Amino acid sequence: MIKQLTIFGVGLIGGSLAMAVRNANACEKVVGCSRNADHLQQAIELDVIDEFTLDPREAVRKADVVLLAVPMGAMEKILKQIADALPTTAIVTDAGSSKASVVAAAERVFGSVPDFFVPAHPIAGREKSGVTAATPNLFVDHKVILTPLENTCPIAIQRVTRMWQTAGAQVQTLGVEQHDLVLAATSHLPHVLAYSLVDTLSETEYVDEIFQFAAGGFRDFSRIASSDPVMWRDICLENKTAILDALRNFQDNLAELQNFIDRSDGNALLRIFTQAKMIRDENVMKHKTKPE
Amino acid sequence: MIKQLTIFGVGLIGGSLAMAVRNANACEKVVGCSRNADHLQQAIELDVIDEFTLDPREAVRKADVVLLAVPMGAMEKILKQIADALPTTAIVTDAGSSKASVVAAAERVFGSVPDFFVPAHPIAGREKSGVTAATPNLFVDHKVILTPLENTCPIAIQRVTRMWQTAGAQVQTLGVEQHDLVLAATSHLPHVLAYSLVDTLSETEYVDEIFQFAAGGFRDFSRIASSDPVMWRDICLENKTAILDALRNFQDNLAELQNFIDRSDGNALLRIFTQAKMIRDENVMKHKTKPE
Repeated sequence: MIKQLTIFGVGLIGGSLAMAVRNANACEKVVGCSRNADHLQQAIELDVIDEFTLDPREAVRKADVVLLAVPMGAMEKILKQIADALPTTAIVTDAGSSKASVVAAAERVFGSVPDFFVPAHPIAGREKSGVTAATPNLFVDHKVILTPLENTCPIAIQRVTRMWQTAGAQVQTLGVEQHDLVLAATSHLPHVLAYSLVDTLSETEYVDEIFQFAAGGFRDFSRIASSDPVMWRDICLENKTAILDALRNFQDNLAELQNFIDRSDGNALLRIFTQAKMIRDENVMKHKTKPE
Repeated sequence: MIKQLTIFGVGLIGGSLAMAVRNANACEKVVGCSRNADHLQQAIELDVIDEFTLDPREAVRKADVVLLAVPMGAMEKILKQIADALPTTAIVTDAGSSKASVVAAAERVFGSVPDFFVPAHPIAGREKSGVTAATPNLFVDHKVILTPLENTCPIAIQRVTRMWQTAGAQVQTLGVEQHDLVLAATSHLPHVLAYSLVDTLSETEYVDEIFQFAAGGFRDFSRIASSDPVMWRDICLENKTAILDALRNFQDNLAELQNFIDRSDGNALLRIFTQAKMIRDENVMKHKTKPE
């Protein structure tokens, strides 16, 4: 049982976790904190959190678990603000989409990464954001990846694991670098491609027809271009190296495909398409989880 | 009322239309034709068609409407086979994803594009294919684009329009070239990107983790990489010029985005992401149709 869970950033992720742990009676009190009193007041009215404060130090003073669910760019600032107000028994965790940058931020703030800090990433983003999109079921059957370091306290890992399990999530562990590479490929790169595709199409002659006749492929594809721009700007900056790597690999592959189309090489196209379909179908079967 | 509808290629599209017109009692008899007797027998057993023959000339001899629902690469061959067996009152239409190439094929076969030929494209693809995936509701609230030429007989256009409306589709008209540019952008390019993305990821070190931790963005994105490889090879060959154009525009845009990430230009990224989200959300609101 958590006595006080303090959540920085009561948006889709923070708000949904608050609802989930409160619904499960796994927490006595959830305190929200951000810079925006109106948002926090809305979270109270929607019965997402119990209390709020605009003062980060006040927010953590009695917390036993602190969750940072803010855009990546704001993590370090909040860690700085709360660093010497944290109770000695408090556990700190986050919900950032890239982990090396959060670990580096914690290192800068605390000198070394504290053993009570458990870097984590719930894979449950949606194109909608904000507390009005929060739902207690957001994490059910979704994965949460923890990327603990060598010195991370096992009890802290266990408490964070239980918290996410309470919300219905499947908790798994990856290395920090491995997480960032895998997420760059499966999440960050697709988002960059989706934003780029919509931006490309918006500049074409037939932009109105394009959206009018958009088929399912494009709708699926462009859905993620509706995600929170600030969050995705931050992810691009914070996981830059891994994203640029993934992007270069993709561009090389695409240039090869372009070349096959240009040369009307039907055999090469068929080979690539067949292989991609096979790999995709096999892996979707193998890792059947609830789609977002 | 159609007396005999002959469908070449009783797969997802051909089979679904057969079911829809038969359910609506809009057709006395649906005859299937392809090179594969097993598939056609299966279509009979699934009660998708009334009869079948392996002989193209026999198939059209008593048809009043003929639908070519085969991969693009097979269109010309079938037109050749049926050209001088068609009754004088028969209407021919197709379901190809690019239109200039079908029009050119008809021109080669008949000398000039016959006035009874109505080029058409139902926008209702799925990643599943084959007659087992056919469903009478496939076209409900989906768009079918007709691209008639100047000489196309208005009665032929009207009959094809009614046939698709019977299946629940919204029928609209575009120019041949306009259709191919719009579809290259909204459907063909996203499919090429999806195939390329899956192919890229399948070659990375963490391929297993990539699919294991794949978030919704990637699932949406990769779903279309599960589409029929032969169909998509043909589309890439048949709508090559428009696809290569769209691909070049996309690559330029992506290179620009890559440059902004590389330079950590957060303002430029935020501007592009915000604009893409706005355009996407606005247009989805404006053209709300049933997603596939």
